[in-house]
Amino acid sequence: MLRPQLWSCMRQGLRGGLSRNGRGWASGAGRKVDVAGIYPPVTTPFTATAEVDYRKLEENLQKLGTFPFRGFVVQGSTGEFPFLTSSERLEVVSRVRQVIPKDKLLLAGSGCESTQATVEMTVSMAQVGADAALVVTPCYYRGRMDSAALIHHYTKVADLSPIPVVLYSVPANTGLDLPVDAIVTLSQHPNIVGMKDSGGDATRIGLIVHKTRKQDFQVLAGSAGFLLASYALGGVGGVCALANVLGAQVCQLERLCLTGQWEEAQKLQHRLIEPNSAVTRRFGIPGLKKVMDWFGYYGGPCRAPLQALSPAEEEALRVDFTSNGWL
Amino acid sequence: MLRPQLWSCMRQGLRGGLSRNGRGWASGAGRKVDVAGIYPPVTTPFTATAEVDYRKLEENLQKLGTFPFRGFVVQGSTGEFPFLTSSERLEVVSRVRQVIPKDKLLLAGSGCESTQATVEMTVSMAQVGADAALVVTPCYYRGRMDSAALIHHYTKVADLSPIPVVLYSVPANTGLDLPVDAIVTLSQHPNIVGMKDSGGDATRIGLIVHKTRKQDFQVLAGSAGFLLASYALGGVGGVCALANVLGAQVCQLERLCLTGQWEEAQKLQHRLIEPNSAVTRRFGIPGLKKVMDWFGYYGGPCRAPLQALSPAEEEALRVDFTSNGWL
Amino acid sequence: MLRPQLWSCMRQGLRGGLSRNGRGWASGAGRKVDVAGIYPPVTTPFTATAEVDYRKLEENLQKLGTFPFRGFVVQGSTGEFPFLTSSERLEVVSRVRQVIPKDKLLLAGSGCESTQATVEMTVSMAQVGADAALVVTPCYYRGRMDSAALIHHYTKVADLSPIPVVLYSVPANTGLDLPVDAIVTLSQHPNIVGMKDSGGDATRIGLIVHKTRKQDFQVLAGSAGFLLASYALGGVGGVCALANVLGAQVCQLERLCLTGQWEEAQKLQHRLIEPNSAVTRRFGIPGLKKVMDWFGYYGGPCRAPLQALSPAEEEALRVDFTSNGWL
Amino acid sequence: MLRPQLWSCMRQGLRGGLSRNGRGWASGAGRKVDVAGIYPPVTTPFTATAEVDYRKLEENLQKLGTFPFRGFVVQGSTGEFPFLTSSERLEVVSRVRQVIPKDKLLLAGSGCESTQATVEMTVSMAQVGADAALVVTPCYYRGRMDSAALIHHYTKVADLSPIPVVLYSVPANTGLDLPVDAIVTLSQHPNIVGMKDSGGDATRIGLIVHKTRKQDFQVLAGSAGFLLASYALGGVGGVCALANVLGAQVCQLERLCLTGQWEEAQKLQHRLIEPNSAVTRRFGIPGLKKVMDWFGYYGGPCRAPLQALSPAEEEALRVDFTSNGWL
Repeated sequence: MLRPQLWSCMRQGLRGGLSRNGRGWASGAGRKVDVAGIYPPVTTPFTATAEVDYRKLEENLQKLGTFPFRGFVVQGSTGEFPFLTSSERLEVVSRVRQVIPKDKLLLAGSGCESTQATVEMTVSMAQVGADAALVVTPCYYRGRMDSAALIHHYTKVADLSPIPVVLYSVPANTGLDLPVDAIVTLSQHPNIVGMKDSGGDATRIGLIVHKTRKQDFQVLAGSAGFLLASYALGGVGGVCALANVLGAQVCQLERLCLTGQWEEAQKLQHRLIEPNSAVTRRFGIPGLKKVMDWFGYYGGPCRAPLQALSPAEEEALRVDFTSNGWL
Repeated sequence: MLRPQLWSCMRQGLRGGLSRNGRGWASGAGRKVDVAGIYPPVTTPFTATAEVDYRKLEENLQKLGTFPFRGFVVQGSTGEFPFLTSSERLEVVSRVRQVIPKDKLLLAGSGCESTQATVEMTVSMAQVGADAALVVTPCYYRGRMDSAALIHHYTKVADLSPIPVVLYSVPANTGLDLPVDAIVTLSQHPNIVGMKDSGGDATRIGLIVHKTRKQDFQVLAGSAGFLLASYALGGVGGVCALANVLGAQVCQLERLCLTGQWEEAQKLQHRLIEPNSAVTRRFGIPGLKKVMDWFGYYGGPCRAPLQALSPAEEEALRVDFTSNGWL
Repeated sequence: MLRPQLWSCMRQGLRGGLSRNGRGWASGAGRKVDVAGIYPPVTTPFTATAEVDYRKLEENLQKLGTFPFRGFVVQGSTGEFPFLTSSERLEVVSRVRQVIPKDKLLLAGSGCESTQATVEMTVSMAQVGADAALVVTPCYYRGRMDSAALIHHYTKVADLSPIPVVLYSVPANTGLDLPVDAIVTLSQHPNIVGMKDSGGDATRIGLIVHKTRKQDFQVLAGSAGFLLASYALGGVGGVCALANVLGAQVCQLERLCLTGQWEEAQKLQHRLIEPNSAVTRRFGIPGLKKVMDWFGYYGGPCRAPLQALSPAEEEALRVDFTSNGWL
Repeated sequence: MLRPQLWSCMRQGLRGGLSRNGRGWASGAGRKVDVAGIYPPVTTPFTATAEVDYRKLEENLQKLGTFPFRGFVVQGSTGEFPFLTSSERLEVVSRVRQVIPKDKLLLAGSGCESTQATVEMTVSMAQVGADAALVVTPCYYRGRMDSAALIHHYTKVADLSPIPVVLYSVPANTGLDLPVDAIVTLSQHPNIVGMKDSGGDATRIGLIVHKTRKQDFQVLAGSAGFLLASYALGGVGGVCALANVLGAQVCQLERLCLTGQWEEAQKLQHRLIEPNSAVTRRFGIPGLKKVMDWFGYYGGPCRAPLQALSPAEEEALRVDFTSNGWL
């Protein structure tokens, strides 16, 4: 197996232009890949008969390719990964790799419940072209998923992964918040480069950045709803479902934060909160896909058991966009 | 104990023959299989290198076969099903079917996140010999798993399943309690025969029995900790992790309840609560497997990320058994 | 201060007829008062201008006096005690004492946030005629209310109380469940006679009874919704809001449980669950008072900020009673 | 009503003079008091026998008076208000008023469970010199405290209060988060000037600022842990327990945020998170008082049932300060 550090250096050498932020990343031996920036976690388009629609996927990516994203997250929670077979998960990542420009990072969700399955999926994701693996916390036996178990899990995955690992904590889906002490320990692993935190607790984000400040460890906000707060506290980007429909605006918010235009950033952030909540916790992926249809992308149906929105939900969804001036 | 009279008589006459053909649920006009009784949810034994140890599985089953269980649950939460591949899940069920007596029911956990995958797994489980499917609630997108979504999911599964379906609500693992109104609706489906409820809320169990009293719908307690309460409220049995180590005692508790010996039942129930909590919510499967080792079964290791108990945990586990007179 | 034991004996000698159950209580030096039985937690009637309406209180009590209750709880959660001044709390208890028969126990809620205030209120409650004090867990600083703090609190109160103390855990209101280990420790206090548990977790109730079996310690269910389960597990009675409107039925359920008529008990229990939920967690005190109006008692308004039911809520409330045959 | 920007400009010009007269809310037609700035929520010092120690209170205030606070919160959660009698609550506020400079705002906690009691306490607080009332959500009947009930409650209080009202949501204590829709409605009341939000959810803070932007409505962070995030999202200050011991640092963080020195602000914020958590959710008021003792203030004991820290807790508390360079 390639040593992760070498591999990272190779990638950095090949790709270039990665020095987007002043924190964490630098060129040279033993340095980690820089994941700073904005990523849409792409949806998986389905046909009316619930088959993966690869053509629509490519069309969506071509449209999304016009925005200055750092890359794409594939098989995140937004990608309905729990509804895909293993081969579908890999095929989707493979297709995305072929479509997106070489200089865009591809972060592939590779988390499974068992450590062994997660290792295998991570290795496979690397083989089909993922630049880094986004590894969600295992959660079914959450009562036993204490820091020790999670440190063991992620260490094993990172040890055996040919690509850098990004920790992924999303309590709304998993009922489990990756403990800060586990994050601090894991941040010292040479093949763990950062985390995506979807909780939205500003104190927690600040604490994570603070306690990992001596490591090359980057924090990505898991939602556009607290992206400004995350930047203000030392986060370096975001994986934002909303970027699937308001990509320019989320990138604009990034730019305002990175250039210190906090007043403008605040105004924009305010207008993104309700649309963001609408396509995440309020109406979920069915909501996001509906808005994609409105905005010229292909949203389409979700796989069951996710249901289409009711007319009343659809109306409320629309209001969250119109009242903020986006429709 | 109350049971639907006619149906109970039928069951006596048909015992051993009903619904063992893999197409059994509709063997009579609108009549359902009777799932009343006690089931150990069997563990999946692993070797030191984390392979499924089928020989140990068979040995455990032979020992468990000496108790008057109604049958066995395979691939329940206790079976570490999220850590098995699809083919392992099926192979384990197939082996269990070959080992256990013909007159024992085999309830196979077939729940997956997507409806389609659950249907396929359920059909496969029937093919390898399951008598009924125990279908856990999908939960990753729990924010959208309202009654409508869950009714749609279970209806589809039950429509397409060749074997009867048992609903399975286990909020400690899924973070989701199957709503009572959904249960009531689903109880009317001809191929849904009952549910396993692992929450332990006596009010809820009573309400479910009450609201489904006009259906052939049976409620199984999901734990030995509230088995007496469940019987008292109209439940008809239990899927009890504790029965893997105290099988005689759990069956004895069943008998005391069914014969109305409530005082004796209460005394026995009391002595089972702490051991039960120890092998479920407190120390989980690692705790159960440790006690199996103590009691002459093969427990062995869990698959990662589940960790072995610490010495302090092991000692606390032992106290929960010794202080109640079981060790 | 009178030693609690002496005082208890005195009361028992004066009142007589207390040997309702075989568990826990017996006459003689150092024995505790027997609190077994059913209690309605009486509501506090208010006039249209939100004054306490003592005349309506007396009328309600006279009607309730026709049922075989063990006594009355005054200033429980159902009594809107947080909305009363200290002098109102005492005046209400005083009036109830004057109205109810001498052989009915009066359990007075005397819990406050500080230990000192709770002691003072408990002493005052004794002075105005309470037979025992029902002491809710302090909860505002719940993050620091661990077992040690709660043991300290209740020990101090019980040390200084001239009347027996009943622990009161009601997580729906306090967000705090009195830990079992604290209960076990406190059960050894000579002036703590039992507890009211409003959580409804059958496993927990069984465990509490089991772990305190060597003490004179009695467990009362905090709701009619799990009264049968509580009796089945060794509970000795209940403080049931529903008894304010279906007093005969709740007492009937007690009788069926105490005489071992479990099948009849189950049928009755089932029919009480929905009405019980309706007047507790679903529609709260405004719901209970509305039903009191329907059943010939005086319900009347609550104090603000509790609001009257909406017409839709009122209709749903009615259905919960009619569909179970009580209206 | 003045647009906030204008009003901000005025405030700059008038700094020190605006609405500092202690009766400020109605100093002009329809103009509200400006509550922007940092406030320590002062602790209530007790003697060894649990009496309020007014001399120590005055000494603490004199020391705190050297920092550029906007004012002081008295009888917030940190003030142990649930442990004080009504007359103690008023006496403490009265003493604070006499000690602090005229140009410092005094925000007095006046929340009670009933609307009527809250109104009376608020009026009394005004009489003893409070400039504004900080009104915590009633919470004992939280199951019925929906938006309608809370809007009714606060409207009544604000209607009848002679001083401006600040809403106060503190879910860690109350188990209740004041809903955003209720906040938006209440922000339109001429006598409601803002809120203190102690939840720390950056998305929520941004949304509240955004949805109330057309009102003169100010949001104060309820903790130093997310003060920077709050400023970044449009908050105007904070009520920070930590300011009782690190007053200069919290005011420095305010200054850095107000002057746009976000990098320096971030560094300082990071170093305040652990000390802040230590004196709030981790070790509570006993922790804060212990640190006050270390820093030359009078901390002293809490009233029971709050317990002193264990030696192990005290050591962990110390580490949270030393590891961040504050001790």
